[in-house]
Amino acid sequence: MRFLSFHCEYFKYKTTKRSRSKVFEELTDNNKESSLNNLILLFISVEKKDESNPKFLEKSVIEIEKIIKQIKVSNIVLLSFAHLFGDLSSPEFSLKSLRELENLLKERYTVLRPPFGWFNELEVKAKGHPLSRISRKIG
Amino acid sequence: MRFLSFHCEYFKYKTTKRSRSKVFEELTDNNKESSLNNLILLFISVEKKDESNPKFLEKSVIEIEKIIKQIKVSNIVLLSFAHLFGDLSSPEFSLKSLRELENLLKERYTVLRPPFGWFNELEVKAKGHPLSRISRKIG
Repeated sequence: MRFLSFHCEYFKYKTTKRSRSKVFEELTDNNKESSLNNLILLFISVEKKDESNPKFLEKSVIEIEKIIKQIKVSNIVLLSFAHLFGDLSSPEFSLKSLRELENLLKERYTVLRPPFGWFNELEVKAKGHPLSRISRKIG
Repeated sequence: MRFLSFHCEYFKYKTTKRSRSKVFEELTDNNKESSLNNLILLFISVEKKDESNPKFLEKSVIEIEKIIKQIKVSNIVLLSFAHLFGDLSSPEFSLKSLRELENLLKERYTVLRPPFGWFNELEVKAKGHPLSRISRKIG
């Protein structure tokens, strides 16, 4: 897994249409659009090599928590994102992993996860301090 | 060079403080903050291997123009961005390359380039169509 983190004052998304992925989540009144304030926005690529690494989610949570504690936020957006130059896992594995990551994090934090398999309009205000943009490779 | 492209309805930036880079551009009344509408926002990493590839800027312009023509925009933001998992060039070479890229593109397009070596607050609304997020490696 690799991710890019933006510390944002606000984040809003609105699903528009189905992406090319055959795997997708159904839209509901709850997940079509939403927003959050004072958050880290994580653009996440689950990678091919994660499929054979049972520890990668645990390690991801550790890395995400380090950032959260440094920045002092408790709101997280998990956005599946294919464009981080990694070798991507299957969409089935990506979705399963993102759901598991959400479950692990939401025990302690507020987590927003836009539905998998859709294009989104995004509206964000990203902060401009030394930790406002971070990237990490896990495993 | 590698870049991530976001097609945006609007983009605003405001410089905040000096980044870790020893190389930086002086702030003026003109470059401290600015905005643009209907644009592609390019997060750009100039890479170590570009230093020995005299053709990389020419090739970058070709790739950027392909995107511009597909999306039908004529406004471009060139944002130096270290977090795309590449092996970065020296900051001197990055700045020189971004300036050259700006000069090549501004013959035909409106180009906004936030000053090198500063953290920025960013405010964007990114569209949600199939070409609204694209990543490319050059060379």
